[in-house]
Amino acid sequence: MEKHHSETVIIRMHCPDQRGIVARITDFIYRNNGNIVALDQHTDRDEKRFFMRVEWELDGFSLTKEQISPAFEHSIAIPCKMKWKLNFSEQIPKMALFVSKMSHCLYDLLARHQGGEIKAEIPLVVSNHKDLEDVVKKFGIKFVHIPITAENKVEQEKKELEILKEHNVDFIVLARYMQVLSADFVTHYPERIINIHHSFLPAFVGAKPYHAAHARGVKIIGATSHYVTSELDGGPIIDQGISRISHHDSVDRLIQKGRDIEKIVLSRAVKAHVDRKTLIYKNRTVIFN
Amino acid sequence: MEKHHSETVIIRMHCPDQRGIVARITDFIYRNNGNIVALDQHTDRDEKRFFMRVEWELDGFSLTKEQISPAFEHSIAIPCKMKWKLNFSEQIPKMALFVSKMSHCLYDLLARHQGGEIKAEIPLVVSNHKDLEDVVKKFGIKFVHIPITAENKVEQEKKELEILKEHNVDFIVLARYMQVLSADFVTHYPERIINIHHSFLPAFVGAKPYHAAHARGVKIIGATSHYVTSELDGGPIIDQGISRISHHDSVDRLIQKGRDIEKIVLSRAVKAHVDRKTLIYKNRTVIFN
Amino acid sequence: MEKHHSETVIIRMHCPDQRGIVARITDFIYRNNGNIVALDQHTDRDEKRFFMRVEWELDGFSLTKEQISPAFEHSIAIPCKMKWKLNFSEQIPKMALFVSKMSHCLYDLLARHQGGEIKAEIPLVVSNHKDLEDVVKKFGIKFVHIPITAENKVEQEKKELEILKEHNVDFIVLARYMQVLSADFVTHYPERIINIHHSFLPAFVGAKPYHAAHARGVKIIGATSHYVTSELDGGPIIDQGISRISHHDSVDRLIQKGRDIEKIVLSRAVKAHVDRKTLIYKNRTVIFN
Amino acid sequence: MEKHHSETVIIRMHCPDQRGIVARITDFIYRNNGNIVALDQHTDRDEKRFFMRVEWELDGFSLTKEQISPAFEHSIAIPCKMKWKLNFSEQIPKMALFVSKMSHCLYDLLARHQGGEIKAEIPLVVSNHKDLEDVVKKFGIKFVHIPITAENKVEQEKKELEILKEHNVDFIVLARYMQVLSADFVTHYPERIINIHHSFLPAFVGAKPYHAAHARGVKIIGATSHYVTSELDGGPIIDQGISRISHHDSVDRLIQKGRDIEKIVLSRAVKAHVDRKTLIYKNRTVIFN
Repeated sequence: MEKHHSETVIIRMHCPDQRGIVARITDFIYRNNGNIVALDQHTDRDEKRFFMRVEWELDGFSLTKEQISPAFEHSIAIPCKMKWKLNFSEQIPKMALFVSKMSHCLYDLLARHQGGEIKAEIPLVVSNHKDLEDVVKKFGIKFVHIPITAENKVEQEKKELEILKEHNVDFIVLARYMQVLSADFVTHYPERIINIHHSFLPAFVGAKPYHAAHARGVKIIGATSHYVTSELDGGPIIDQGISRISHHDSVDRLIQKGRDIEKIVLSRAVKAHVDRKTLIYKNRTVIFN
Repeated sequence: MEKHHSETVIIRMHCPDQRGIVARITDFIYRNNGNIVALDQHTDRDEKRFFMRVEWELDGFSLTKEQISPAFEHSIAIPCKMKWKLNFSEQIPKMALFVSKMSHCLYDLLARHQGGEIKAEIPLVVSNHKDLEDVVKKFGIKFVHIPITAENKVEQEKKELEILKEHNVDFIVLARYMQVLSADFVTHYPERIINIHHSFLPAFVGAKPYHAAHARGVKIIGATSHYVTSELDGGPIIDQGISRISHHDSVDRLIQKGRDIEKIVLSRAVKAHVDRKTLIYKNRTVIFN
Repeated sequence: MEKHHSETVIIRMHCPDQRGIVARITDFIYRNNGNIVALDQHTDRDEKRFFMRVEWELDGFSLTKEQISPAFEHSIAIPCKMKWKLNFSEQIPKMALFVSKMSHCLYDLLARHQGGEIKAEIPLVVSNHKDLEDVVKKFGIKFVHIPITAENKVEQEKKELEILKEHNVDFIVLARYMQVLSADFVTHYPERIINIHHSFLPAFVGAKPYHAAHARGVKIIGATSHYVTSELDGGPIIDQGISRISHHDSVDRLIQKGRDIEKIVLSRAVKAHVDRKTLIYKNRTVIFN
Repeated sequence: MEKHHSETVIIRMHCPDQRGIVARITDFIYRNNGNIVALDQHTDRDEKRFFMRVEWELDGFSLTKEQISPAFEHSIAIPCKMKWKLNFSEQIPKMALFVSKMSHCLYDLLARHQGGEIKAEIPLVVSNHKDLEDVVKKFGIKFVHIPITAENKVEQEKKELEILKEHNVDFIVLARYMQVLSADFVTHYPERIINIHHSFLPAFVGAKPYHAAHARGVKIIGATSHYVTSELDGGPIIDQGISRISHHDSVDRLIQKGRDIEKIVLSRAVKAHVDRKTLIYKNRTVIFN
């Protein structure tokens, strides 16, 4: 599934569960001579809702790129009351990274990006501090320093939005960016901002979760990647990871052990997003194979 | 997906991957007015092979129980060169447990069985020792003592086979049964004998794996449930589990920690088998959702 | 460390961290000709507090059982401002189980108890429902039915306390007992009531945590064993465990997967308590090797 | 334990288990006015062997740096038949990295090194290919290209040894270096070469372990960091990690998932080695807290 030599079409969809829905979708592809390379579906019995991701080769398909969307819309999506997204594998999304002072998530993302594991472009890295400028430049990426204070937050966020727009950024990754984005900012990138929170959500929302975990005396710590919504650390969870700890682990050791979980969990989430394997419904995610 | 009030039809199948295969199968169900309650498929790109499990409600389906098999065979299975199995959810399989002296897997299976988690009948428990007779009788199950020695193995296995046949046993679970079954015995229950091996296979095949793990100084131990074939500990793996250990763990502690993994992993495998969620292909398993 | 043929002395202690504390304690044992079989210590740098568990053979020790306590008190504990507990390995603690309707934790504890893994006596099992009476009787243990309602709670807890006293119960295990014990009840067994909560605390305190976990869309669920205090699900954590889940897991499946974590985590906690390997300090635990 | 402002003395030792050994060692430190900041010991009952790591502040200690070794040797090590090592926290070890074409372990180590997590110097990176030269130079570290073929291996290893000696290298990390070092090379750095093997040892020794894991159909993959000995993948294990997989994971996906385990496990091992927390005995390791 990893090596598609030809371009593929990816559709993610959800709709009310209904008889014959899989038959209908797969028949649409089959009749148009499409060769499916990946298919994953899920039915939520409680919500009576159907979710699916299907990917097929464009090569040999009897519809052109331009024809697929209207054809699918009319023959499937409208009659099935479907919400859906169409992508082509060669549309490489543009990702902006927001960082602060800690380098571990940044390095992990940049190294994977450079190794070809994360198929996105990174036009720029934004930071409210200058600490990581050298790291970013090492990788030949533009570094934009936008310091944020309580006083200048509104105007600085406006500036950020302008720069993001200018670079046609598709989605944002908060790689241990220590600022809370305003609700207004978030509305510009709905379901398109990914954060890593350094706790096993919903435990320890907000600041200093490792201190809180240590104080509570937990025996396992975690990290959570999620889409950002206006509710602090309350958005749809993409992935989580954990690490077993003991009474020997001071707060400093929790922070250090936590870094390993954070970077892996964030990178997995970014990869799932870039590979168009995520779908959000009612503040929860479906993560396709 | 856990609570089907009406009976369901379950088909597991695999065939050469081919265009339109999902459309063809789901259309068969749709045209006959079937309501799919579970569908999971997998395509192995390297093997160019398609695997699927689909479950739909019998209630309202336009074919009778008797008509389904020939209809599916002719319209789908033969043209698609498919290998497949048909089950109905109300066919409760009969499971025989083989035990020896250790009680942890036996208790775990019997407790789950009694709690309704494992939907099978247990007509009997076979053992080469009498140690667990009381445990078995506590649960109101028939206990059959068949001692095995190097000398009497051939005739005792014959006796076992007779008793199994007499009780219409569908499959066998070796719940820490310390005997190796003969190749001949295994041929009577192909893909229908489940074993738990107390190591992370393929590491530490054979006897005394915890001693071997301790001697090798591993930092993680494991357990493996697998279908039994004529190759010792070499059959298709159903599930595995692990536990982190340290230099503090003596062989005795490994054995103790291992018991917790063994029983969970074996019970998960038995449940997957009973729920008809396993499929074997070329000594590997597909485990459906 | 598992097979002590002779009786051992176990001391657990904590005191302000101070120079020479390990030398002082080990020298006390050495001078009295004690053979240490286990020693584990921990220093909490933030709290400037020292914790230790040491176990040595009584056989050959130059002090008698009766002499140890006053000798240690005067030569070590008082000068070091220590809090400490003395136990002998042959003091088998008496454990009461409180259950309700679910059998998985009960079975797991009883099976381990019977297998010799949990070295405690179980004089009785208390339940507010009769569902598990048969299970308990199967194991030859006394079952006491004490139904609890909002109206009769005060008097029924009084009755429970009387029965516990009558049977010289040392500690209580709430094996999925669905009642909240009153603060008054808890004061009778300080640091001696162990609960299993079916979530990854401090996430999802209180009722129906699996429903809450499902609604929040977490990707990992957990269970937590802890000592009960007057704060609901807020006592010192002994152990935690987790299981990875996905969008395929309905609430029913979470409940089922959760049972496997609950029983393992509760049994590990009970074993640690029985083996005198736990120590509480400021609402956190030290769990010795 | 992470923030020692003053220099510390670290002794790691093992000797036959004997009465009073802890008292003897801690008393030596106490009498010389040492303030212990970390102590961890372990007794292997089967081997009747005692292991210990103790760390105390040099500041205030009544012996000078030069006096410690002979004093400890005469009063403790010789009478106790001890093997031991002395280090001072300010001796920063020199680490050479050997790499080939894959960058993930290299990046992870360099990023941690730069973040101060791995307290070592990296005088050079050696590689048999030029692929990672840019990565290494990005971090301002010397890159030495020493291509290896079957024909030139003996002379090239000689060259490597000369360069290592020239740079006073203390230990070597094979960060996915795809060459097998000769037995002769290994003898120059006994217990001082750390490798990462991309399997859950002892399963899948040798080349292409992910292909072998896929062929065997395992449900969990792993990685193992170990000290290199003359036996291929047979040296003392420092750490292991695992990741759960399914039938959906092709060999390519195993390789990708494996990278995350490899880098974390290797970095943890390197950190344990640099922090002087490892001890080898009979081809197994003790990893201190």
